[in-house]
This record gives sequence, C-alpha cells and structure tokens, in this order.
Amino acid sequence: MITVLKNDTTVEQRESLCKWFEDMGLSTYVSEGEYHTIIGLIGDTSKIDIGLLESLSIIESVKRISEPFKKANRKFHVEPSVIDVSGAKIGGGNLMIIAGPCSVETEEQILTIAQSVKNSGATVLRGGAFKPRTSPYDFQGLHAEGIDLLLKAKQQTGLPIISEIMNINDLDLFEGVDIVQVGARNMQNFDLLKELGHTGKVVLLKRGLANTLKELLMSAEYIMAGGNENIILCERGIRTFETYTRNTLDLSAIPALHELTHLPVVVDPSHATGVSRFVEAMALAGVAAGADGIMIEVHNDPEHALCDGAQSVTPDQFSRIASKIKKVHEEVTV
Amino acid sequence: MITVLKNDTTVEQRESLCKWFEDMGLSTYVSEGEYHTIIGLIGDTSKIDIGLLESLSIIESVKRISEPFKKANRKFHVEPSVIDVSGAKIGGGNLMIIAGPCSVETEEQILTIAQSVKNSGATVLRGGAFKPRTSPYDFQGLHAEGIDLLLKAKQQTGLPIISEIMNINDLDLFEGVDIVQVGARNMQNFDLLKELGHTGKVVLLKRGLANTLKELLMSAEYIMAGGNENIILCERGIRTFETYTRNTLDLSAIPALHELTHLPVVVDPSHATGVSRFVEAMALAGVAAGADGIMIEVHNDPEHALCDGAQSVTPDQFSRIASKIKKVHEEVTV
Amino acid sequence: MITVLKNDTTVEQRESLCKWFEDMGLSTYVSEGEYHTIIGLIGDTSKIDIGLLESLSIIESVKRISEPFKKANRKFHVEPSVIDVSGAKIGGGNLMIIAGPCSVETEEQILTIAQSVKNSGATVLRGGAFKPRTSPYDFQGLHAEGIDLLLKAKQQTGLPIISEIMNINDLDLFEGVDIVQVGARNMQNFDLLKELGHTGKVVLLKRGLANTLKELLMSAEYIMAGGNENIILCERGIRTFETYTRNTLDLSAIPALHELTHLPVVVDPSHATGVSRFVEAMALAGVAAGADGIMIEVHNDPEHALCDGAQSVTPDQFSRIASKIKKVHEEVTV
Amino acid sequence: MITVLKNDTTVEQRESLCKWFEDMGLSTYVSEGEYHTIIGLIGDTSKIDIGLLESLSIIESVKRISEPFKKANRKFHVEPSVIDVSGAKIGGGNLMIIAGPCSVETEEQILTIAQSVKNSGATVLRGGAFKPRTSPYDFQGLHAEGIDLLLKAKQQTGLPIISEIMNINDLDLFEGVDIVQVGARNMQNFDLLKELGHTGKVVLLKRGLANTLKELLMSAEYIMAGGNENIILCERGIRTFETYTRNTLDLSAIPALHELTHLPVVVDPSHATGVSRFVEAMALAGVAAGADGIMIEVHNDPEHALCDGAQSVTPDQFSRIASKIKKVHEEVTV
Repeated sequence: MITVLKNDTTVEQRESLCKWFEDMGLSTYVSEGEYHTIIGLIGDTSKIDIGLLESLSIIESVKRISEPFKKANRKFHVEPSVIDVSGAKIGGGNLMIIAGPCSVETEEQILTIAQSVKNSGATVLRGGAFKPRTSPYDFQGLHAEGIDLLLKAKQQTGLPIISEIMNINDLDLFEGVDIVQVGARNMQNFDLLKELGHTGKVVLLKRGLANTLKELLMSAEYIMAGGNENIILCERGIRTFETYTRNTLDLSAIPALHELTHLPVVVDPSHATGVSRFVEAMALAGVAAGADGIMIEVHNDPEHALCDGAQSVTPDQFSRIASKIKKVHEEVTV
Repeated sequence: MITVLKNDTTVEQRESLCKWFEDMGLSTYVSEGEYHTIIGLIGDTSKIDIGLLESLSIIESVKRISEPFKKANRKFHVEPSVIDVSGAKIGGGNLMIIAGPCSVETEEQILTIAQSVKNSGATVLRGGAFKPRTSPYDFQGLHAEGIDLLLKAKQQTGLPIISEIMNINDLDLFEGVDIVQVGARNMQNFDLLKELGHTGKVVLLKRGLANTLKELLMSAEYIMAGGNENIILCERGIRTFETYTRNTLDLSAIPALHELTHLPVVVDPSHATGVSRFVEAMALAGVAAGADGIMIEVHNDPEHALCDGAQSVTPDQFSRIASKIKKVHEEVTV
Repeated sequence: MITVLKNDTTVEQRESLCKWFEDMGLSTYVSEGEYHTIIGLIGDTSKIDIGLLESLSIIESVKRISEPFKKANRKFHVEPSVIDVSGAKIGGGNLMIIAGPCSVETEEQILTIAQSVKNSGATVLRGGAFKPRTSPYDFQGLHAEGIDLLLKAKQQTGLPIISEIMNINDLDLFEGVDIVQVGARNMQNFDLLKELGHTGKVVLLKRGLANTLKELLMSAEYIMAGGNENIILCERGIRTFETYTRNTLDLSAIPALHELTHLPVVVDPSHATGVSRFVEAMALAGVAAGADGIMIEVHNDPEHALCDGAQSVTPDQFSRIASKIKKVHEEVTV
Repeated sequence: MITVLKNDTTVEQRESLCKWFEDMGLSTYVSEGEYHTIIGLIGDTSKIDIGLLESLSIIESVKRISEPFKKANRKFHVEPSVIDVSGAKIGGGNLMIIAGPCSVETEEQILTIAQSVKNSGATVLRGGAFKPRTSPYDFQGLHAEGIDLLLKAKQQTGLPIISEIMNINDLDLFEGVDIVQVGARNMQNFDLLKELGHTGKVVLLKRGLANTLKELLMSAEYIMAGGNENIILCERGIRTFETYTRNTLDLSAIPALHELTHLPVVVDPSHATGVSRFVEAMALAGVAAGADGIMIEVHNDPEHALCDGAQSVTPDQFSRIASKIKKVHEEVTV
C-alpha cells in the first residue's frame, strides 16, 4: 500500500504516522519528492481501513498494491478451483450447463422441462421458487411448494438442482438443493453471505447490477471467510445507459475474473439481455470468452410463463444452443 | 397501457388477445396503422406482468401510460405527506436535519456529538450500529451495544434517532429507534421491505446505487402495500463512470420525486461524495433543489473515526453548514 | 408514433393538434381512456421533431413506434449488406480481419507488421496517422507521412488499408486509403459525417463511449442521407463504472445491430479492453456473437509502441488468435 | 509518478528502466517490498505516455501523483480566474447569468427574448445558429443568418453573446461573437480545440456526456497549450442509467472543479434535465453548490420552438428564477 502525503505535512506528523503503521506490524519506507512525500507499507495491509486512512488530514491519496481479498485471490491459489456438484463439475476445463425455467410453476411444467434439458445436455436444472420482483403486485414464486417440485424433478432425472434464496430464514428449505443462488440484488446482503459462509452449500453468487469485479470478489470473500469455499461466480449483465437490452452483459469479466481469482465463472445470457432472440449469440460468446458454465432459461411455453417469459428459449432452441456451445467450447479450449 | 402488435399478427390472434385482456377486467380499443396495430388498455393495469406480455410472440412492444406504483403515487395523493417523528417533522415545507456519526463508537463519542449537533440545529440524531462494509475484514459496528448507546443519547438530548437495519431478525432491537434506515444495498431486499410494511415504524429508504427513481418508488410500494405509509425517501448518489467523487449525487431526483410521489425526500451529501470538503456545497445544493431533509455525517474526531471518516465534517463545520442550510431553505421556499 | 395527451386537454386543443398533424400529411386516430387520451399517427413520422412535440403543454409523452433511421433500417433492406473493400469482403457471412499497429511509426515497423499479419490471415491493414489523444502533450501521429507509409505497405502486400480521419480538411490525404475510420470521439461530429456522406469512401464508424445503438444508427444515417451507403459499424466498448478494463465491450450490440440494421458490424477488442491479455478471449467472443469483422492491434515490439502499447498483441499471438477466430467463425455460421 | 514492478523483474531490467527515466530528465527512487518493487519518479512527468509505460512487460501498474494538466491546474494558479466578457465578468465571486433560446429562429424572436432576459438580469445572451442534432432530418439551425440576428440583438441590447461552433471552418463567422461554445459532443474534437487555442476568443467548453472531470480539464489544456487561457467550463449533465431526466446533472462537479482548477464553472440545467419544470430547482442548486454562472434556455413561445422546446422556460419564469438565483448566490457567498 502506498500513501501520498500532502505538501504541508510536517516531519513530526509524518513520523507519528509511520509509528502508527509500525504499531500495526507493518514496515514503512519513506520517499521524498519535490511535491510529494510517499510512505510505502510492507506487510499484511488487508486489515487497514482505507476510509480511515484517507480521512487523515495529512494524506492526499492512498493506493492499494495488493487486492483486499485473500481466499478468493488467484495469487495465493494458482490452480483454478474445480467444484463438483453431485457429479456435475465446473472449473478447470469442466463446462457446466444450467438450464430450466425462471419460475417453477407446476409439476408437469418442471418435470417436462427437466427431462428435455437433460436430454439436450444440461448438467444442472434451474428453477426459481422465491422470486425477487420489482413490483409487489407481481408473481413472487411458489416458495416451499416450488422447492418440492424441483426435488421431484431432481429425483426423476438425476440432475442436481439450483434455486435462489432471498432470506436466510428459508435456509432449511434448501436442504436438498445442490446449489444455492444469491441473486444480483442480494450480492451485498452481507448478513445473508455470512450465514452461507457457515454452511457447506455450493453457492452461485451473481454480480450486482452496479458492482465492480472487485466488489464481487469481496462478497465471495464474505462467504469464504466463514469457511465455505464452494463458490461459483456469475456474470449476468450490468446496468448502463443502453436500453435496447435489459442490461449490458460484460463478457470481459470472464478473462478478468480468471486472472483475479481461482473461482469458476458462469454466464447468464438470459437475464443479461432479457431477450430470447439474443440468448444463443451471447451464450456462444460467453463460452468463447472462456466461461466455465452457461445458465439459460428454458420454458416449454414461453408465451405463458408466469415470469420473465421474454427471455426464455424453447426446449428445441435450447437443444440447438447446447450443441453449439459444446462445439465452441472444444475449439477454444484446445 | 399500450400494446403494439407485430405486422404479421392475424385477426384471430388479435381477438384472442383482446379477449384475454377483457377477461382481466380491462377495456380495450384497437387502432390499425399501416405498419402496426395498437391495442390500448383501459382500467387497472397495475397487476399486468409486463414481462409476460412482452413474451407473447405477436407483441412488438408494450408501454405503460400509468405508473405501476399506486400508494406512493402523487396522482392519487396530491398533497405532500408530512411525517412527524416524535416532534421532528418532515415534508410539506418542514425541513429535517439529520446529523451524527457514521458509526456509534463509544458512549462519550455519541453523547458529545449528539449534544453538539442538537445545539447547532439538528432535529434527528443518526448513528450506525450495524454497518454494511464491502470487506468482511472491516469494522462491522457495535450491534446491540451501539443501539443502547444511541438510546442513551436520545434520552439525554431528546433528539429522535435513526439507525440502519440490515437483517429483519434484528427488528426487536429497534423498538426505541424512531426511524429505521434501509441502506442502498438493501433497497431491493424485498423480504426486508415486506416485513417493515407490517410494522408502524417510520422507514428511511435509500436509493440503490444503480436504481432508477421508479424502482425506488416500487420499493416504497413494497412497504406501503403492507400498510405502513410512513416512508422517507433518500437520494445518496448513484454509480457512474466518474471516480473523483465516490458516487454521483443526482439532485434532479428531488424535483422529479416531488412530481412522482407525495413522500418526502432527504439528501445525503456525505455518502454521495465521500469527501468532507464537498459536503457543504452539496448540502446547500440539496436544500436549494427542494429537499425536505438533509443527512450529514458529523464526527468529533474524523481522523480517528472507525468508519468512513473521510466524509465526516467536524461539529464546528456542521454548525456553520446547518446555519447556511436554514438560510437557503428560507430563500427557496418563499 | 403515439402521443399521450394530458388529462386536462380540451377538445379544442386536441382537434387543433390533430389538424396540425394532418397538415403534415399524417393520418390520426384518437382513443380516449379514463385517465388519458391518445393520438396515434400514421404515415412518415421520421421528420417530426420529438423535442418540439414534447414541448407542447398538452402533451404528457410521445413514443415512436417506428425507428427514426430509414436508410440504415433493416425493415426496409432485409438482406445484410455486403461491402467489398478492394476484394476484402465483409457482411453476409464474409469475415473481415483487420490488423495492424495503433500508430504508424516507421517504415520498417509498418512493412514488417503488414507482411506478418497478411501471412496470418488478416484481410485489411490498420494503422493510425492522426491520433486522438486525451492529453495535448502525448504523441499525435505522423500525419501525412504516416499515410504515405501505409500506402507503401499497401503496395507491398496488396492489403487494403484503414486509417482514422479527425478533420474533414485532411480528406485529400485519404485518397488512397480504402476505409476511412471515424473514431468514437467523433461519432457525433455531424459536420464530419455529412462531408463523408458526399464521398464514395467506405466508412468504418465507431460507436461513441456513451452512445446508444440507436444514436450510432442515426450517425450512420447522417452519412447515408448524403448518398454514401458504404458503412461498417464498430463496437469498441462503452463507458461504465467498471474500471478493471478500460471500457466495457458490449457484445450484445452485435445481435441487436443485426436485428436493427443491414450494415455489417466489426468488434475491436483491443481498444475496448485496453489489455492485451484479454484480446484473444474477446476477439473469439465477438466472432461467436456473430460479428462480421474483428479489428486487432498488432505491434512487433509492443513494449516500445508510441501509443497504446498495453493493448497490442505480438505478431505471433495474432497468428494464433486469427487461426482460432476462423475456427469459431466456422462453428457458429454452420 | 509511481511505477509498480512485477514480482519477477530482474535487477538488470529494473536498472535499465531507471536509466531510461533518468535519460528523460527524471530522478528516480526505488523501494523494495516483499511482493513488489516500486520506482518513484520526480520531475516533470507530464510528458510521459502512461499507455507506453503500462505496456512494458515488467510493469504491474502506474499511478500519477500529479495531474497531467498544468495550465488549468489550481496548484500552479491558486487564485480563481476572473474572465471579463465585454463587461460581463465570471469567476472569483462574479456571477454570470446566460439566457436565451436554444436556436435563433427569427429576428422578432431573438430581439424580444434578448430584451426580456436583459431586463430580468441576464448578463449574456445565448442563441444557437449551428445545432448538433441526433437526426439528420431535424432542424440544423440558421447558420450565418442566425449569427447575424444574434449580432443585431447584441447591438440593440448591449448584451455580449454566446453561440456554438461545430466546425473550425466557420470560425470567421464568429468574429463578433463574444463567447464561442464547444458543445458536449465536440469536447474531444481535438482539432477544433487546437485551433481555438490559437485564437483569443473566450471559449465555453461543455463537458462530454461520458467524460470525467479530468478529461474535461485535459480538453481545456488542449486550448490553453495553444496560448488561449480564456476558458469557462460547463457542467451540463452526464449519461447514466436514469431515464426520467435526459441526463444526470453532476453538481458535485462544481466543488470538485474548483478544487482542481482555477477556471470558472457554469451549470446548464436546461440541457441537463431536458425538462423545463426542473430548471428552477436545478439552477438554484447549481448556484448553491458554488457555480460561477448559470445558463438557461428561455423562449417566448416554448410550445413552438424549433428545437428543444421541452426544456425552455418562458421569460416570466426566467425573471422569477433569475431573482431567486441572485438571492441564493448572496446567501452562499457570504
């Protein structure tokens, strides 16, 4: 960490600051320039509160050299993590294909889609039971009943399942759910993250609409700090000024995250674009960019889906997309 | 609500769609253009799921004419709401000045600041006991002990108090807290909003970093739908590409919200800019733009604050700012 | 076009407005709702100034149903345009690979790179002679001398060349340049666009950092309105809050533009990310998303490039990337 | 400037880099940490090309300590600049009020408005003759005729005038124009900036929709580097995800620019919000935030303005706003 002092800092102030750093177990070195004096800090600076440091009146700016996340950091865990979800692997060359409806609606619906996406190559079944909706007047999901129907589909097809949690008080309901999803709006619901850190659950953590990659990794760190390192990251679009698509899918996040962390990265083209016509193009782009997994909304009757139908593809379209995904994955991982 | 049909829609499809609308209690009217046919909908369309409608293959686009929020809507509640918080009023010309430290740290700290800001004209005392921090390794607040210290300050000064809630399971601790704050990161923590809707607590709801004004009002609607209409909105900066300030304070939100809703609006220049040097300018700008309240972080020793010191002003600075705030408020409300 | 009137509009005002529309050759239809009256407009509304219309006191909102761009619009030109640049084709399944240095520096540099990228499969050579730099103190390009060196490279290799124009007064220098590039910062330099509309030059038009897809198409329309329809669009990243990459490459723009327009679309992963390590991933993602061309910065000595070296790849890296690009292109266009 | 080296840099590489810096006239100092080695640079680093430096394979990151703008920098010019435009002063406590129509339309229109805004306290008259419009089919301004009409209004009222230039080839037409405006879309039209640097014209430079404050200052530096230091900066809104207002007026830019530069700052609430109802609130907020000037669109018949009528206020509204502006200015500058 580098600290730039203001011009008018006295020698006494500077020495007092250095002493404070040294009392925290850090080594310091001082370099005096014509306009600025700089204090470099060596040691474990991850516990220094940048806000506090910047608040000191003698300090002009502070720059971290090391990232503040540790367990998620690739520098200290060079090999990519491989996570095994009841046999469906992700990371280190293993591609996970997650498919299913936005919301679980009926037994027939979820069983039909589950069987169909399994046949087309999906390795995990998705389905929402608790739905975060912008309006309190929109359909909010089937809750416990939705989880039960997912479990039936899991039993019948053998596919592991993923579903979103919105409230830590519902955790018991997720006992048979293989991957617990934390949605974009809850990426910084720190109390939820902490609690998940004390479970052994695989967590799929979605990037918030206005969150940087480093904030995403700090949220992963919240879970990992509690002892749970089974985390899959998910890029699902960020909010920008462009309105033609619902959000802007940030695919550069894939190589960037692979550089910063060992955790696997999934891309969700359905929620990112909000437009089923663009799902194929963006799913293939995601795989070509190096994603470890793709999550696609599939509905057997998108015109009557109770939620987000506009972004779902049909089982037939999914079958074609899944097949292309595998071919592109082969080309880029050779 | 207006629905634009695709060119190749058949008359049968169109009639079937109109029937579906009519079954929902809506009146329809159809206008045929050269390139497009349009169906207008009359009646209560707030329960129509736009996602579902857009998913129909015959539909090109959908445009709401009426806003989807009802209880927060100024069209149905023309007079501005005035909220009385133990004698400190906000709205309808009443200015609320909220001041205090980012975090409650010690009894001496909170009592000293409380007395000082009261003397300078603050009408509500703020202080964080539960702190949402990006890093799991940063100070997270004193929790129950922090609330207790705030209550002491309330007792000693008579100032009503505001503090942030992060987890609905902590609600009992907030019994003596006059205003419960929902932070920007929890603006779409819908489960938390729903629960607060079943209490009688005054809620200060902060706009999320990437949330539109209409989404903010939909989140207010979540609380109001449960029966609790005591809501204060808060603009605290949105996330943009500019990095010189921490966030970009969107002051146009004030006249815009006053047009859309009857709920009062507070501005938080401290969190928005993250820079104590800019707090005075932005506080005055907020009042000049018509804000019903201003929330300012004050710390008697900003250089040693455990959290967000960089954005705090000293009690002396606050005294000067509060005095200017009142003068500008008088000029603009004449 | 749909015009929503305010509640309190009188019948006389409405009829006067309808007459005004009809005088402009448009047909109107009126639909009265409980809260709103709507006037629909049928005919050529592309010349209506939305700003003017919205300014009328009786109007609540205006919504275009048809896009305001005509010559670029795919609705009126269903087949994708194929542009032939001295034998290098783009569009309709033809992939263009543009490669070369950010700036032309020396004869040896440009000749070496030109030969190398040709051998690796590039179909067009790029090289900057006029460089838009944020700082007036940075290298601004070799100007006329740079164009001359590019022409030498064209002669020696047979590759068509592309270079950026910043000032219409320089147009004569571009006589032998096959594609004139308009940079992101000049996307709305309307005087420059108009002048290019009166030439027969192929123009590669880059999307501005804060411009929507529709604005990009309106800028293309500026050129096309003058009679020049040889336009290639280029996605090169938009500005968002994320700072890990220089800009955020918006790959959803590719399927979106293919839906809106018949013009071909190129992706520039080098400028978008600003990081050479990410160029391969994003080039492949671009092709997988359906791009008609890829533009990559290549430098034989990136460590000493006078400009933007951080984002250049070496000729060896380019050779490997170009080969993968072709394979992915084959997989996705089957 | 601080340069952080990668872990695996050899001593030879480091010494070679230091020698290269020293050959450029800079002093260096080296600090070795456990994970990183840092080279600090002392001297005039404004000519170092950061892109070039970051491209070197041994470098992890580079951080400027000093800003790359010099003539605009407040560190080297502590007093705020006062610019005198034919008697209308701005800066250092002098408030400039600019008012007039978006476009000059007719002689009667501009003369009427000019007299009216003068009576209400405007100190400069605005009026567009060259209009940058998103669509080629929209009204583009009266060009030379518009300038002539402005000059008549100047003669009749004695008010200095401001008008926008879009093409350097039109410069001769601006001989009698007191302030030449560079619009947001041309903020990085570097050729235009350079040419203006060689004139003695006062330039009002608008911030681009996606440009940072530092980029705005670098564009000012382009003009100042040529010798022309008569520059007024203008905040007119940036592009964000919020669509309720046309752009997001970034008022924190005012105290931030006052800290970074000695140049005066004007706020344009009309273009920023695009909504005449919000102009008063944002004009007052701008003054309260410390703006040195306010620019407001005024039209005697906003319902029939040929351009941007939606954001214009009437002369009566302007009169009321101007009077409040002065009162708030007095309160905040005491």
